[in-house]
Amino acid sequence: MKILLDAMGGDKAPDANIKGAVKAINQVEAEVILIGKEEIIRGKIKEFFGKEMEEISPRLKIKNATETIEMEEQPTVAIKHKKDSSMVVGFKMLKEGEGDVFISAGNSGALLAGATLLVGRIKGIDRPALAGILPAYKSQLLLIDSGSNTNCKPINLLQFAQMSTIYLKNTYGIEKPAIGLLNIGTEETKGNELVRESYKLLKEKSEELGINFIGNVEGRDAFSGKIDAIVTDGFTGNVFLKTTEGLGKFVKRTLTESLTKNIISKICALPSLPAINRLKKAMDYKSYGGALFLGVKKPVVKAHGSSDEILFEFTIKQAEKFVQNRAVEKMIEEFEKK
Amino acid sequence: MKILLDAMGGDKAPDANIKGAVKAINQVEAEVILIGKEEIIRGKIKEFFGKEMEEISPRLKIKNATETIEMEEQPTVAIKHKKDSSMVVGFKMLKEGEGDVFISAGNSGALLAGATLLVGRIKGIDRPALAGILPAYKSQLLLIDSGSNTNCKPINLLQFAQMSTIYLKNTYGIEKPAIGLLNIGTEETKGNELVRESYKLLKEKSEELGINFIGNVEGRDAFSGKIDAIVTDGFTGNVFLKTTEGLGKFVKRTLTESLTKNIISKICALPSLPAINRLKKAMDYKSYGGALFLGVKKPVVKAHGSSDEILFEFTIKQAEKFVQNRAVEKMIEEFEKK
Repeated sequence: MKILLDAMGGDKAPDANIKGAVKAINQVEAEVILIGKEEIIRGKIKEFFGKEMEEISPRLKIKNATETIEMEEQPTVAIKHKKDSSMVVGFKMLKEGEGDVFISAGNSGALLAGATLLVGRIKGIDRPALAGILPAYKSQLLLIDSGSNTNCKPINLLQFAQMSTIYLKNTYGIEKPAIGLLNIGTEETKGNELVRESYKLLKEKSEELGINFIGNVEGRDAFSGKIDAIVTDGFTGNVFLKTTEGLGKFVKRTLTESLTKNIISKICALPSLPAINRLKKAMDYKSYGGALFLGVKKPVVKAHGSSDEILFEFTIKQAEKFVQNRAVEKMIEEFEKK
Repeated sequence: MKILLDAMGGDKAPDANIKGAVKAINQVEAEVILIGKEEIIRGKIKEFFGKEMEEISPRLKIKNATETIEMEEQPTVAIKHKKDSSMVVGFKMLKEGEGDVFISAGNSGALLAGATLLVGRIKGIDRPALAGILPAYKSQLLLIDSGSNTNCKPINLLQFAQMSTIYLKNTYGIEKPAIGLLNIGTEETKGNELVRESYKLLKEKSEELGINFIGNVEGRDAFSGKIDAIVTDGFTGNVFLKTTEGLGKFVKRTLTESLTKNIISKICALPSLPAINRLKKAMDYKSYGGALFLGVKKPVVKAHGSSDEILFEFTIKQAEKFVQNRAVEKMIEEFEKK
């Protein structure tokens, strides 16, 4: 297996990308190919680890790409014109079978555009979407679309529900994943036009498409562990995702400070630290790392824009599993059956 | 001062409403008037407390109203036809000066329609909106619209920003409240059409209107304590609100269980319980209680639909402060100046 990593994408690139790849290499079986400016990458490896890349692992490689797509660039324009950017080179390698999965923490819009234009959509899916995995009570929650399609139609949300079902069945072994529609109330009449129309469509089509649609779900019930996936448009989904991240940060900070306010509370907190640290880790929504870009013909993983080396390490390991589960192949099979 | 409480609205009505009012009466200076079916209310008081209402406090009163607006009723129709419902009676009393603030945990749509139709909007405000107060790092966060207007235009969001500014200045004494626009990125070009257009309008008008507009804000930064208010449409705002509630529940549950897993972890957790309980309380987003309905001519408070007696008690106390701060009068003055 070959994992392609955009070495130039993300707020902390290329340092965090390179360090994360080096940390991950001994924990995965795959080759990890760093895509970006070869000279810079080689120099950084030498600077950080005091040796040549080849000395670290024979499975750590570089593919030279001389350009970088910046965060503020117009996505489609960037993908079309920067032919030698780390992102475009990565997608081309993925398409041509020179890699099995592509990871990037770069410009999200460009990643979406590139995946669709260069790798291609699965037949039957109009809009691929980002699926994020969040922690929930004794389980996890798939959130789709977690930020790729700002404007959606009901048919898109229906397809998100289909994709979630197939993904969760094949990857997590959940026989009938419970799929909810994110809304501001549980009644059919609640919400904006998109949600009301999507509700109707989901209700009408779910039996035929094998979706276990459980109706409208409010954010307050989202983490109960009873819901396997939540479908929504990319604007609302991204607000949802980032709100959990913000609240998670607030919890971590408040917890840490109230337990270390003074020497007495520090000592008192010692015995319960393992439990508290588990919670703090669960609250670190960033550590849920990569969102999967479902609906394209090959595995594409969007790493968090502000990924640090630990997160890159985590995302690389996650990407290996994504390929091992053959989630994308199974999605193609299921959609082609229809 | 007279606090009007809809005794029949909410999932746990009338029991929780009545118990909450009795608990609150000795903590407020105001009269509390329970609006609903007199016979039922009297019977319940006798049942719960073993005495007549008059024996509890001379400031606890009843206003008979024979009808109730149910959760699933069509808001405008209900307000127009159920003239003797607890909600309509409450609004009429508020309008006619027989009360200073009206609290209801009933049908939100009906509350919105009733406030607008029966009490009336402040001149210069097109859409009144619910403003919720959430905890943030060493401070609080005002979220407007937290659920009343599912569809909004840029002008509505601009007015939400104006109302927040006036409210926070007068109630919290914040000289230049920092107002952010909820979005999925900080760049001007991010978001859906409503957000992009609202950004332009806010940027253009904020100086003239005395708004300290700090630009787009992502959910991940919302709780940092650096932002005083977040403006958004009622659909997105309600998703935001309920997501914090859901995640808060998850944190509380996980924290409790990991600290009480077995006898050893229970004992170990004892010294840090006060700190942990403070956090759990902060995570109980329900306890932030009533959302203020800003933009109508009199104080209206929307209590949480699933309010229990503790929450009613809290909301009654909060409503008293809302009146004492003269927030609504000050809003009328400021908007009339313009």
